[in-house]
Amino acid sequence: GIGYYLPPEVQTSKQLSKLINKSEEWIISRTGILERRISKIDVDEMGAEAAKNALNSASREPDLILNASGVPKQTIPDTSVFIQKKLGLSGIPSFSIHATCLSFIIALKTAACFIEQNVYKRILIVSSDRGTRGRNLNQPESASLLGDAAAAILLEKSTENDPSKFLYSNMKTIPNAASLTEVRGGGTNKHPQDNDTTDEDNLFSMNGPQIYKIARLEVSKMISDDLKKNNIKRKEIKLLIPHQASGMVVKAYSKYGKFSENQVINIISNTGNCVSASIPLALAMAHENRQFDRGDLLYFIGTGAGLSIASAIIKY
Amino acid sequence: GIGYYLPPEVQTSKQLSKLINKSEEWIISRTGILERRISKIDVDEMGAEAAKNALNSASREPDLILNASGVPKQTIPDTSVFIQKKLGLSGIPSFSIHATCLSFIIALKTAACFIEQNVYKRILIVSSDRGTRGRNLNQPESASLLGDAAAAILLEKSTENDPSKFLYSNMKTIPNAASLTEVRGGGTNKHPQDNDTTDEDNLFSMNGPQIYKIARLEVSKMISDDLKKNNIKRKEIKLLIPHQASGMVVKAYSKYGKFSENQVINIISNTGNCVSASIPLALAMAHENRQFDRGDLLYFIGTGAGLSIASAIIKY
Repeated sequence: GIGYYLPPEVQTSKQLSKLINKSEEWIISRTGILERRISKIDVDEMGAEAAKNALNSASREPDLILNASGVPKQTIPDTSVFIQKKLGLSGIPSFSIHATCLSFIIALKTAACFIEQNVYKRILIVSSDRGTRGRNLNQPESASLLGDAAAAILLEKSTENDPSKFLYSNMKTIPNAASLTEVRGGGTNKHPQDNDTTDEDNLFSMNGPQIYKIARLEVSKMISDDLKKNNIKRKEIKLLIPHQASGMVVKAYSKYGKFSENQVINIISNTGNCVSASIPLALAMAHENRQFDRGDLLYFIGTGAGLSIASAIIKY
Repeated sequence: GIGYYLPPEVQTSKQLSKLINKSEEWIISRTGILERRISKIDVDEMGAEAAKNALNSASREPDLILNASGVPKQTIPDTSVFIQKKLGLSGIPSFSIHATCLSFIIALKTAACFIEQNVYKRILIVSSDRGTRGRNLNQPESASLLGDAAAAILLEKSTENDPSKFLYSNMKTIPNAASLTEVRGGGTNKHPQDNDTTDEDNLFSMNGPQIYKIARLEVSKMISDDLKKNNIKRKEIKLLIPHQASGMVVKAYSKYGKFSENQVINIISNTGNCVSASIPLALAMAHENRQFDRGDLLYFIGTGAGLSIASAIIKY
């Protein structure tokens, strides 16, 4: 099962331009984003809506709920609890995996491992982020990027005749680049009660050009490694489903990454960067558009705060 | 490898009594806690100190760093990145697992699964919490409970002649009890920038008596299930290592749980409730005191915000 939730309220780049004191053209040329969604409901409810769509065809409840989101509903308890509550479920083990924009890839790998070891049989993964809550309007570029969305999948053991398989995954974290993408507040570092914690500390801060410089090199290396290690050629990948970091980043996979534009899922112009929900939302939309079939190779890849780079190859 | 870090600064219950307008006797009779530590360094540095002790005898770097803590250093990136930085490492995949006080049990189960599947070979798990940063001094009972600590383990594949094995784990989440243990702030729910977010929203809030009522029943059921499913008798468990929630909770394992007092690790009087670090700290101290040997059965169990109950049985 695969499902998503896009909030109904659209904010166009023209509407946003007035809030950040930049022109519509400036936003579109910098980010490639025409519009994004602004959610009026919180991340747990958004996640539950996506999960209902993923669970739609399922005959039984999940036996594990994994929240794989960037920013939580609140510090304690973790968001998985609130998603379970909004789904009207109880008693199901649940916890959160956090690797910012890469949370979905890590949760997918973890869930695949649980299923192969028969620890769990039906795992619901939910990524839900409401990045527009943390936009810093004084940082026009990052404020233009963020959009709200949720997406969810239900993962089950494949049957004997089913080609589906989690093939491979990869991750690298470079802590020296930790300050390039930050929300410094919300924890013990810049505690909300501290007098010297500023509003900016509690909002999203990003150094796009610096990240792009490191990311282009690291992502390109990871693609080469991944394909080589798995003995897969670019043309054998049915779809590359990247984190929708920015228009330029998504285009780089075809421009420099040597994949064809048809292979690379690009949804950013109408959704923005939906943080952790970005990758599963791109997957869910491609699924809705029947862009892949059973047995096709799907390649997830992206960067996240950390700076981390992660990827996963699955046979759907 | 097993290591821990206890901050040097002690706060006695006598010292605390003046801050919460209760007597020393009131604190001790309610919580069983004589003193707790107050950290002057942040969770990443505490975690790195514990990790250094766990890595001490290791010849090679870990190939995965798992942060398994209750409250993060900051919202983004996740704390694993900062722990890796403080350890002077780079390039190692890292992410966080969050199930509040049960994070260590969940991370242990996840790490065991990764190792059995040969996904990773040397996994560093770090639990580090600085609960005293979030004490609400107007809630004298919960404010008396919290203490700061970090603990870490390095997990590797056991060799053929080694009896070590992760045997079993269990978890149950009851979202209807989510509001019994909360920090409502720090995320999209009560965002630090919102005018109606109060100081209390950003501090730890707990309904101890209500949790105890649910927990006693649920924990007792989980113990019966765990022992029955694994065909293990109480006397075969070398040590029961519970979350150190409160003095009363730890004592309940012998008083009602039918384990002998010698089997139950009880460190709470001198450390307080150290949130996620509580269970691995109890493990590390028992290890330091040589209270268990290779092949012994260790039983981890506890409750966390959610409300969740989780357990794990390992052969050390």
